[in-house]
Amino acid sequence: MTQTSMTQAAAGPVVGIVGGGQLARMLAEAATPLGIHVRVLAAPHDEGAVEVIPDFTLGSPDDASAIIEFAKTVDVLSFDHENVDHDALSQVERTRTAVRPGLGLLKIADKAHQRSLFSQAGLPVPEFLVLDADQDDALDQALRFSAKHADDDGLIVLKASRGGYDGRGVWMLRSEDLEAFLAEYSGAPLVLEPKLPLDLELAVLVARNPSGEVAVWPVLETVQVDGMCAEVFLPARISEDLAAQAEQIGRQIAELLEAVGVFAVELFVSSGELLINEIAPRVHNSGHVTIEASATSQFSQHLRAILDWPLGPTHSLQPAAVMVNVVGAETGDPRDHQAAALSAVPAAHLHLYGKASRPARKIGHVTVTGESLEQCRTSAALAAAALSSQEGSLHDY
Amino acid sequence: MTQTSMTQAAAGPVVGIVGGGQLARMLAEAATPLGIHVRVLAAPHDEGAVEVIPDFTLGSPDDASAIIEFAKTVDVLSFDHENVDHDALSQVERTRTAVRPGLGLLKIADKAHQRSLFSQAGLPVPEFLVLDADQDDALDQALRFSAKHADDDGLIVLKASRGGYDGRGVWMLRSEDLEAFLAEYSGAPLVLEPKLPLDLELAVLVARNPSGEVAVWPVLETVQVDGMCAEVFLPARISEDLAAQAEQIGRQIAELLEAVGVFAVELFVSSGELLINEIAPRVHNSGHVTIEASATSQFSQHLRAILDWPLGPTHSLQPAAVMVNVVGAETGDPRDHQAAALSAVPAAHLHLYGKASRPARKIGHVTVTGESLEQCRTSAALAAAALSSQEGSLHDY
Repeated sequence: MTQTSMTQAAAGPVVGIVGGGQLARMLAEAATPLGIHVRVLAAPHDEGAVEVIPDFTLGSPDDASAIIEFAKTVDVLSFDHENVDHDALSQVERTRTAVRPGLGLLKIADKAHQRSLFSQAGLPVPEFLVLDADQDDALDQALRFSAKHADDDGLIVLKASRGGYDGRGVWMLRSEDLEAFLAEYSGAPLVLEPKLPLDLELAVLVARNPSGEVAVWPVLETVQVDGMCAEVFLPARISEDLAAQAEQIGRQIAELLEAVGVFAVELFVSSGELLINEIAPRVHNSGHVTIEASATSQFSQHLRAILDWPLGPTHSLQPAAVMVNVVGAETGDPRDHQAAALSAVPAAHLHLYGKASRPARKIGHVTVTGESLEQCRTSAALAAAALSSQEGSLHDY
Repeated sequence: MTQTSMTQAAAGPVVGIVGGGQLARMLAEAATPLGIHVRVLAAPHDEGAVEVIPDFTLGSPDDASAIIEFAKTVDVLSFDHENVDHDALSQVERTRTAVRPGLGLLKIADKAHQRSLFSQAGLPVPEFLVLDADQDDALDQALRFSAKHADDDGLIVLKASRGGYDGRGVWMLRSEDLEAFLAEYSGAPLVLEPKLPLDLELAVLVARNPSGEVAVWPVLETVQVDGMCAEVFLPARISEDLAAQAEQIGRQIAELLEAVGVFAVELFVSSGELLINEIAPRVHNSGHVTIEASATSQFSQHLRAILDWPLGPTHSLQPAAVMVNVVGAETGDPRDHQAAALSAVPAAHLHLYGKASRPARKIGHVTVTGESLEQCRTSAALAAAALSSQEGSLHDY
């Protein structure tokens, strides 16, 4: 008997996850108590999931044949990230294996598609222009948009419609820099938008199952630093009215897209008004706080949703909760610093992703629940700083 | 690259667990977010842990050489169950690998040793007699004890001092049956005690780390059926005064034994008085409720304690919580019934152990937290019954 052979005889449903990062890892953490068997398609360079999931297959999410073969071995196929070969998924959708979320929701990861669809549906989105950099009049269009929408510093925002994450694939440019940028840029179409004055940023976490049941968590407030989510507050520091509007937008999008699984709607609050920034068609960094803070975590809920099980309640268990990301530094591994973090904040909930520490890489997070956001935030930041062996610092928001 | 080779390069501390049942499984669930690498020594027939822990070694807890070799590969050695070769552990204790809990606490699993030690320390224990069945005057001694302590039905309790669990190794006998029983019995010394009239049963869950820090959870109430823990209530339905006494007994035992890790003190309440039933020198069935109900779960706490990290707070997060065990039946596997259980009780926290269903075998548990024990208990029992595809029933306590 080889070691791996003992893991083959799975009872209960088998969920396949494409990608072996921290989202796969945390989905597996939620799957174990539920009696759901998780199988991961991981690339050789993936860290995070393979350390803790016995049943994995080596393969790339860009390799159509690897995905198709992997899908044959599972009941439901889901995702650690949305940058997956769509043609392969189309093929899998024609087999007995369910693809959840389906291509309909995954395609919404395309920012150009998102903006156009939501705009047509009457949902609140920023002013925008979809631009193909190879088109003859691309520069003219961009300059006209810039002339109309640039902020006081002359800046507009350009985003690659596909493939960006954690601040990558986003640029802020003045009109005089557009020509050089467009000449050099090659890739997916661009979305241009104003650089909005932001009051704050929100995330609405939504779950929907194939039976049509929808669950929405209380609105989360996200603090972005350098385009990356740095902190999450539950609840968001907004009026009840604005919270209700945001939740309603989440529900509308779930119905519009017939979404399956958990997804996040990232929202701007600009001059008191809600604007949809983008959709993340999967469990989301902002939702990590739900592991301890909510009656049902986003990871349990995603598994329940994609298996078409009844969804769980989403109310908060404590008055306040704050999550702070742990980002890699030049030196040190957080897996040597848990005692220091727990010494600083014994009540901190540490989550390490099993990833080597590199600058600007998310390698873990810390959640603290309690009576007030202020107190939770101070504690979570302290523990996170101890984990990355840095002095604690709070961003000025 | 083989599949297993990817799991070898562990960063952070490596905790070895002897035994691959549900306690190892839930320890691993707690270890993952903490960035602790778990390695299991599992027997070929073990189920539960190996399905979800990539890094395991096949070997028996009765095989001294297997334990000694396994211990060389880990930083700290701990246990899924206490029936482990003590000579092997003595040898490991002389190496660089820490054995936690140490032999001192493991030996307390011997009921004869426990009773004598606690009695000498002035801790409240029932009347008892340690009896070697092979001794010439064993029957005389037993008859004298029976004459003095038998209840109205003429019954006394006999317990094997080692090796029993979940009601095995416990007998209730009349004086006229003692001779035949002793003639046939062979094994560890027996402990005789009165069959006490019980008001209820309690468990005090205690953690201690090598630095001497002690943490005690609020007292748990356990409901036993056929010698097995069936339900757990948090908090116990007892007076504040009795709760304080019970917690104090837990602390005293932690100091007395210089315990390391989590252990449980099982207590009887008989005619309003506390009596120590026995110690379980490990994470305990009664403590499963702490996963959702407490600021720190017994599994996280045990890992923190054996690594000499600071302990976490133990207060309850909700006014009430109830755990109900899921016991195997003749037919059906709970891994096919999660949707039914969650449909009955969407807020139920399901925990399945990856074990095949057999009668009288613990294969999972359900926890529900909320405002009142009554409501939590009804819900948890309903979900547990749905998992084992049985009609819901509450024991009459």
